[in-house]
Amino acid sequence: MLTDWSKTRKPEKEEINSRYKEAVAKLEKQQITIKEKKLPVLVLFEGYDAAGKGSVLGRIIRNIDPRFFKVFTTAKPSEEEQRKPFLYRHFIKIPQAGKFTFLDGGWMTDVTNDYMAGKIDDEAYKLRIDSVKRFERQLTDNGYLVMKFFFHIKEKEQKKRIDALLSDKNTAWRVSDSDLWQNKHYKKCTDIFDRYLCDTNQSSAPWYLIDAEDKKWAELQVLEYLVQGIDTALKNSSLSVPLLQNVFPLKKTPKLKDISLDKALTDKEYKEQLKKYQEKLRRLHNKLYLKKIPVIIAYEGWDAAGKGGNIKRITEALDPRGYEVHPIASPEPNEKARHYLWRFWNRLPKTGHVAVFDRTWYGRVMVERLEGFCSENDWQRAYNEINEFEKELSDWNAVIIKFWVQIDKDTQLERFTERQNTPEKQWKITDEDWRNREKWDLYEAAVNEMLKKTSTSFAPWHILESNDKKYARIKALKIVIEEIEKKLDEIKD
Amino acid sequence: MLTDWSKTRKPEKEEINSRYKEAVAKLEKQQITIKEKKLPVLVLFEGYDAAGKGSVLGRIIRNIDPRFFKVFTTAKPSEEEQRKPFLYRHFIKIPQAGKFTFLDGGWMTDVTNDYMAGKIDDEAYKLRIDSVKRFERQLTDNGYLVMKFFFHIKEKEQKKRIDALLSDKNTAWRVSDSDLWQNKHYKKCTDIFDRYLCDTNQSSAPWYLIDAEDKKWAELQVLEYLVQGIDTALKNSSLSVPLLQNVFPLKKTPKLKDISLDKALTDKEYKEQLKKYQEKLRRLHNKLYLKKIPVIIAYEGWDAAGKGGNIKRITEALDPRGYEVHPIASPEPNEKARHYLWRFWNRLPKTGHVAVFDRTWYGRVMVERLEGFCSENDWQRAYNEINEFEKELSDWNAVIIKFWVQIDKDTQLERFTERQNTPEKQWKITDEDWRNREKWDLYEAAVNEMLKKTSTSFAPWHILESNDKKYARIKALKIVIEEIEKKLDEIKD
Repeated sequence: MLTDWSKTRKPEKEEINSRYKEAVAKLEKQQITIKEKKLPVLVLFEGYDAAGKGSVLGRIIRNIDPRFFKVFTTAKPSEEEQRKPFLYRHFIKIPQAGKFTFLDGGWMTDVTNDYMAGKIDDEAYKLRIDSVKRFERQLTDNGYLVMKFFFHIKEKEQKKRIDALLSDKNTAWRVSDSDLWQNKHYKKCTDIFDRYLCDTNQSSAPWYLIDAEDKKWAELQVLEYLVQGIDTALKNSSLSVPLLQNVFPLKKTPKLKDISLDKALTDKEYKEQLKKYQEKLRRLHNKLYLKKIPVIIAYEGWDAAGKGGNIKRITEALDPRGYEVHPIASPEPNEKARHYLWRFWNRLPKTGHVAVFDRTWYGRVMVERLEGFCSENDWQRAYNEINEFEKELSDWNAVIIKFWVQIDKDTQLERFTERQNTPEKQWKITDEDWRNREKWDLYEAAVNEMLKKTSTSFAPWHILESNDKKYARIKALKIVIEEIEKKLDEIKD
Repeated sequence: MLTDWSKTRKPEKEEINSRYKEAVAKLEKQQITIKEKKLPVLVLFEGYDAAGKGSVLGRIIRNIDPRFFKVFTTAKPSEEEQRKPFLYRHFIKIPQAGKFTFLDGGWMTDVTNDYMAGKIDDEAYKLRIDSVKRFERQLTDNGYLVMKFFFHIKEKEQKKRIDALLSDKNTAWRVSDSDLWQNKHYKKCTDIFDRYLCDTNQSSAPWYLIDAEDKKWAELQVLEYLVQGIDTALKNSSLSVPLLQNVFPLKKTPKLKDISLDKALTDKEYKEQLKKYQEKLRRLHNKLYLKKIPVIIAYEGWDAAGKGGNIKRITEALDPRGYEVHPIASPEPNEKARHYLWRFWNRLPKTGHVAVFDRTWYGRVMVERLEGFCSENDWQRAYNEINEFEKELSDWNAVIIKFWVQIDKDTQLERFTERQNTPEKQWKITDEDWRNREKWDLYEAAVNEMLKKTSTSFAPWHILESNDKKYARIKALKIVIEEIEKKLDEIKD
C-alpha cells in the first residue's frame, strides 16, 4: 500500500506558502468553533523514524491556543503502563469535548514494534488489530474526530537524516538504536507498516499518508487534511450510527422477577463461613499478587440493596496495599466531556491488584438511559461497547466479576423507612432515592435488558440475593474465590 | 467467525409471536417515514443454500406496500451481465430514495462462488473485496441504508432440508447441483464464507448473522434488525462523511490558462488526416469487437467548444451496431433519486462495444457543484468516488478516454454570436448558455481542480485544443486510436 499509494505532487514553493497561510487561517478560526460545538479531536502522528513527525507536530500546534490542546509523546511503555491493558495508556489520553490531543506515536507504534520484535505472534497481532479497530470505532461512534497521519520517507532519505544527526556531536544522541535498526531493516519495516495501515484503514477513521521528504510540504499536507477533517466533522451535529450485532458468546440470565429471594443464613452459619472464606480470600490475594493477575469486581444493584456492606466483607480480607474501592457517582465535568468509559479506563488496577467498583460503567444503560442523559442511539450502542471494554480486560487476563445485588420492592421500602427513622443512617437516604423508587418498573426492565445483553462468557453477571444480607455476602465471597481460583488454574496450564 | 459468532438464543414461541407483532407494526409505520424522508434502503440476503432466505424474504415483504419495494433474485450472471463489469448487475438494482430493494443473493454470492469454483485466484479475490468495500461505502456515504443478512444453518440441518426436498417428486427439482455440492463441501464453504464476512464487515454496513434453523425465528431476527437499522438511519438527516485521501496514481495536468490554443490545421491537412485516421479506427473497431474490449469515451468541455462535431468524426468511423452515443442532460427524477453514478453504470457498454458520453459523471464536480445541486461534502467526496468508478472500469479492462474540449472565452463569444445570428443554429444557443458564460471563472477553477484530482494513470484526461475544430478532431481520433492500440498490445501479452 505504501508503495502504490500515490502521494500528491509537491507544489512550487510559492504555492506552498500561499496554501499554508490559507490553511493556518482556517485552523485558527476552527479552534473557536471546535470549542463552541464541543468537538473532541484526536490527532495521531505515526511514521518512519527520522521522518520529522515531532517537528511538524511542534509547528502545527503553534497555530492553536495552548488552552485548547495537549501533546503526548509516546515512549516505550513504562513499568506502570506495562501492568495495564495494552490500550490503557492511549485511552486515557483522549481529549475532552472541544479540545485537541496530539500524539507523537501511539498504538500503531506499540503494535508494529511488538510484532517486529517478535513479542507478539500472528495470532496476537490479529487480536491487537481487532482491539485497535474497536477502539477507534468507539471513538468515532461517540463523536470523536480521529485523524491519523503516517509520515513516509524513503530508505535513502532516512539514512541521510540519520547520518546528518550522527555527524554532529550535539545531535548524535538523538539517534536511537531503533532508528538504526529500522534503516537497516527498511524493507521489513515497510511490509509491516503496510499491513498495519491496510488492516486499520476504516472509512470513519482513515489513514492519511504524508510525503515527508520535505518538512514544509509535510506540514502543509497535515494542515490541509486536518482542516478538511475538522470541517467535515463540524457539519455533523448528532450522529446516529448503526447498531452492531453482538458477536460475543452470551450466558443465559434469569429475569429479576424470577429470582427467589428467600435464601438466608443463620447468624451462626454466617459467622463461621465469613471467617472461613475471608481467610481463604486473604491467601488467594497473595497468590494473585505474585502471579500479577488483575481483578475487577463490579457492583450494581438497587438502592439499599446492601452493596456497601457486601463490599466491606470482601475488602476486609484483602491487603490494603493491593486493592482500591472506587465509589462511582455522577461524572465530573471533565469526565462527562469524554467517552463515558474513560473514567473507568482511568481507574483500572495494575496487574496483581484488585479494583472494586461501587456502581460502574453500567450507569450508561440504567440511569443515563432512563434520565435521558444520553441519546437513545448512545445507550443502545453501549451494550456492545461495554462488552468490547470487558473483552479488553479479559484479553489482558483479568478476573472480571460482576454482581447484581437484588432485593424486592418491599425490602427496599423497609430499609428506606429504617434509614429515615434512624438519625445516624439518615445521610444514606435522599429524595433522589425516593424518586428512583417510583421508577422501579422502568429500572427493572432496563436491568433485565442489561443482564441479557452483557452477560458474556468472559464477564458474566452474578446475582446476589440480598433480602438476607448475610446470605449475599457469603455468596459474593464464594464467587470471588471461585473465579480467582479458576484463573489461577488457567495460568498454571 | 461464523463459528465463534454467538447467535441469540431462540426465545419461547409466545415471546416470538409478541415480538413479531411489534416488529411488523413498527415496519409498517416506518415505510411511510422512509418515503417522507426519502431514505433508500438496500437489503441483502445471503447465506447457505436451503437456509430459507427466499421464503423469509417473501414473508417480510408482505408487510410493505408493493409500491415501495422491488425484489430481485440473483441467479448466475446472464450472457449479457457477463459482458459488463462485475458490480454492474448489482449497482443498477439500487433503490430510489424512499424505497426498498430486497436482494435474494448478491455480490457476495458472485465472489464466493467464483472463488470456490477457482475462477478467481487469491489476488483477484482481494481486488473483488476492495471493489465490494468501495461499492458499499459509496452507498452508505451517499445516504443509503445497507442491511446485510447472512443466513446460517448447520451441515446436518442443510442435509435434512435437501433430503426432504429430494424425497418428494414435486419439490425434487428445487435441489440444484450447487446445493448438493455445498452440503458435501460444507466445511470448505464455511471457511470461505467466514473469510468473506470478516473481509467486508464494515461498521457503516455491518453483517447481521441470522440463526436460520427455525423459519419463524429467522424471520423475527431479520425483522428486528431491519427495524432497528431503519430507525437509526432515519435519525440522521444529512451526513458529512470523512474525505478520503486519494490512493490512485495521478498524472500531471496543465492548468487551462497554460494551454496554448493556437494549434491549427489547414483544410488540406485536415481532409487527408481525417480520411487516414478514420480508416484506421474502422479497422480497430473490428478488432475490439473480436477481442471483446469495451471502450468508453467521455467528452466534457465549454459550451460551443465543438464537442458534437468532434464526436461525429469518431462515430463516423465506427460500425453502428457496435457503438452508442449518450447525450447527458440533467437527470430524470428517477435518476436524481439514486446515487449520481447510477445513470452512468446503467449506460455502460457491453464488452466489444463503444460508448461515447456527450457530457458525463463529471457534472457532479462542475454544474452540480457550482449550482448547489449537491452539498459541499457531496462534490468533495465525488473526486474519489469517480476515480473509484473508473477504477472498476479499468479493472474490467476497458479503454477509458476522457476529453476536455478547450476553447478561450473570445472564441466562445464568437461562436455564441454566430449561433444567435444564424437562424438554423439558433436552437443551439439558450439563455442558460449565456448565464453559464458569466460564471466562466468559477467554472475554470472547478475544471482545474477536476483535471488535477481525476487524471489517474488508468483514466487520464486528454486536452483537445479546439479553437481550431479541425485540429481538435484529428487529435481526438489520434488519441482514440493510440489508446485502443495500447490496450490491444496489452491483451496480446
